[in-house]
Amino acid sequence: MFRCRIDKVRSHLKKQNLDAVLISAVSNICYLTGYANFSQNEREAYLIITKNEQFIITDGRYSGVIKRQVPYFKLLELTGENSLKNIFAKFARLKVLGIEEDEITVSEHKMLKKHFKKMKHLDIKSHRSVKTDDEIRKIEEAAKLGDKAFKYILGKIKEGISEKELAYELELFIKKNGGELSFPPIIAFGRNSAIPHHQTGETKLDKKEGQFILLDFGVKLENYCSDMTRTIIFGKPTNKQKRIYETVLKAQQKAIDFINSKIKSGKKVKASDADKTARDFIISQKYPNIPHSLGHGIGLQVHEHPSLSSKSRDILKTGMVFSIEPGIYLPDFGGVRTEDLFCISKIVPSETKGLFVLGKNDLKQLTNSPKSIISIQALS
Amino acid sequence: MFRCRIDKVRSHLKKQNLDAVLISAVSNICYLTGYANFSQNEREAYLIITKNEQFIITDGRYSGVIKRQVPYFKLLELTGENSLKNIFAKFARLKVLGIEEDEITVSEHKMLKKHFKKMKHLDIKSHRSVKTDDEIRKIEEAAKLGDKAFKYILGKIKEGISEKELAYELELFIKKNGGELSFPPIIAFGRNSAIPHHQTGETKLDKKEGQFILLDFGVKLENYCSDMTRTIIFGKPTNKQKRIYETVLKAQQKAIDFINSKIKSGKKVKASDADKTARDFIISQKYPNIPHSLGHGIGLQVHEHPSLSSKSRDILKTGMVFSIEPGIYLPDFGGVRTEDLFCISKIVPSETKGLFVLGKNDLKQLTNSPKSIISIQALS
Repeated sequence: MFRCRIDKVRSHLKKQNLDAVLISAVSNICYLTGYANFSQNEREAYLIITKNEQFIITDGRYSGVIKRQVPYFKLLELTGENSLKNIFAKFARLKVLGIEEDEITVSEHKMLKKHFKKMKHLDIKSHRSVKTDDEIRKIEEAAKLGDKAFKYILGKIKEGISEKELAYELELFIKKNGGELSFPPIIAFGRNSAIPHHQTGETKLDKKEGQFILLDFGVKLENYCSDMTRTIIFGKPTNKQKRIYETVLKAQQKAIDFINSKIKSGKKVKASDADKTARDFIISQKYPNIPHSLGHGIGLQVHEHPSLSSKSRDILKTGMVFSIEPGIYLPDFGGVRTEDLFCISKIVPSETKGLFVLGKNDLKQLTNSPKSIISIQALS
Repeated sequence: MFRCRIDKVRSHLKKQNLDAVLISAVSNICYLTGYANFSQNEREAYLIITKNEQFIITDGRYSGVIKRQVPYFKLLELTGENSLKNIFAKFARLKVLGIEEDEITVSEHKMLKKHFKKMKHLDIKSHRSVKTDDEIRKIEEAAKLGDKAFKYILGKIKEGISEKELAYELELFIKKNGGELSFPPIIAFGRNSAIPHHQTGETKLDKKEGQFILLDFGVKLENYCSDMTRTIIFGKPTNKQKRIYETVLKAQQKAIDFINSKIKSGKKVKASDADKTARDFIISQKYPNIPHSLGHGIGLQVHEHPSLSSKSRDILKTGMVFSIEPGIYLPDFGGVRTEDLFCISKIVPSETKGLFVLGKNDLKQLTNSPKSIISIQALS
């Protein structure tokens, strides 16, 4: 599997006339080696893939485990005596080096310039946008645990609980079931739900009728992420709330239908057009424009290629996994977002659950929690 | 507080003849605004501080909360119509822009070049290395919760428990007490302790006599981090293990004594000299060189200025908070690391706990878990 991915990198070296590539993104290092434990916040490793060889550069904190777990990369160990400079000096013969310009900092670039005369951008992240069956299976497993967690957390919603406490219960459940959170959950009560990226806080659930509860969370299993959002109502929903909820749901369905129709007719599916379909519908219903993109690819990272946004140039292809998550947010009132993960798949799913039984469609929904309005009645 | 920090940034603008600075590091944005909720993995905000004004650039997901919580920064909201290009175009009059070269990527730099002819590096992170009393108090609170967590976790160590389960118990305790983990804990049993950055896994504790258990973890409270490591022994320690343990402890004490003697004599304390003191002692005892630096500054991030390493040029100053964490790692046998946090403080601590009662010294220890060999006997 890793061999095949490395070969793909090499084919791009050839296409772009590069002698080698220096890979710095932790997610790409994981994709090419299977090793996921380098820090996300500090530079602890690089890969160098030349036409014939592959190297991993890291220090003594990792060298033992890398030797065992990543034997097909030659380890170049950083020590007090063997600095990064010394290691790069060994590659001075390389004429053109590929680098990830969206990862390498200006400081690193200045240091690299001392060793490599010519550098060009090489995009490795986009290699990950089309998933293998095994990757899709992993995301699906993460999504299934997310669905279980949603069902579980519904039973924990009661008067007086705080956003943080609910987030904690969610995390506990996911960890007890062998997963991790794929990002800090967004739990927003009442007016807080009008903030798309609300910081889960101390707000407590009170008896006030018809409060939105927005739950946006994801699971990480075997390094692969899921992501989902549901908005439910604590108390009796008003007509205003129902209309917002239904408009969001319709907007999502319009994007799903759009993608499906394009796939069926064998046409190119522009991600920006999918975004526009949902966005225009929400605006046509006299609600504010969605203040974020319609969706994003997902895999080793929560946000990756493709991007479903107005400015995206991405084409949605078979094997891609992405979210569709329209939302309506009314300041000082509240907001609704519904988010599911989808995969463009040639395989008809053997099991179909939830509201959207896709039958022979090619767009498979991976998250399958209910999408009808859920109202939890406060005890009086 | 924030006003004073912004003023300090402005004084550096003046010193370096810059018209403004573009701040991109999430930790620096938190330091200057108090808002800590931007993603660590994606660029969701920038600050621009000119000679007279300060701006925050972010999108609709954050604009509501920023308006409320950060009112002294003028919000420039990114929308479909108002792109980053448009916003930067408004600052085109700026002649020289400061940027954080260790944060800005090559791609971002290319984009910035279109708007700003001249850019220079401005280091904002080092502003954070000397802490205020309030910051030190926060780190101390985090360290105290860490000590409580260590005491708690000792009671959970028993035959059959896995590294992951122990890490989970630790996380639970910290969260129940209102904290967060400041990084994924390193829990290493037996031979795994020889890997300085072991990935906490499924290894279970067995009855084998004299196994090391290395616990490296930290707490985050009010955005400030703690960090500590203790190595204990499951079963009866052998003489070989005792000698390793005591050598590590002595190496730490030698670094502490070195820093104290320098402070007392009013001399400059070179961080690299502190590193050398501990490192040389371990080598003199015929153990392998420490495969990592002796310590690191800590605050809003787990690793920040100063660096206590052989190549560091940092001078340890009053108000700095840092770890001292020597270690000995013998492949296929096991490893020991002892890590505590220290602050160079002019205040004599009113309470002194633990083994190192510092009295009138200026080096105050913030983590205070016991450092004598702890042996937990396996039930037969």
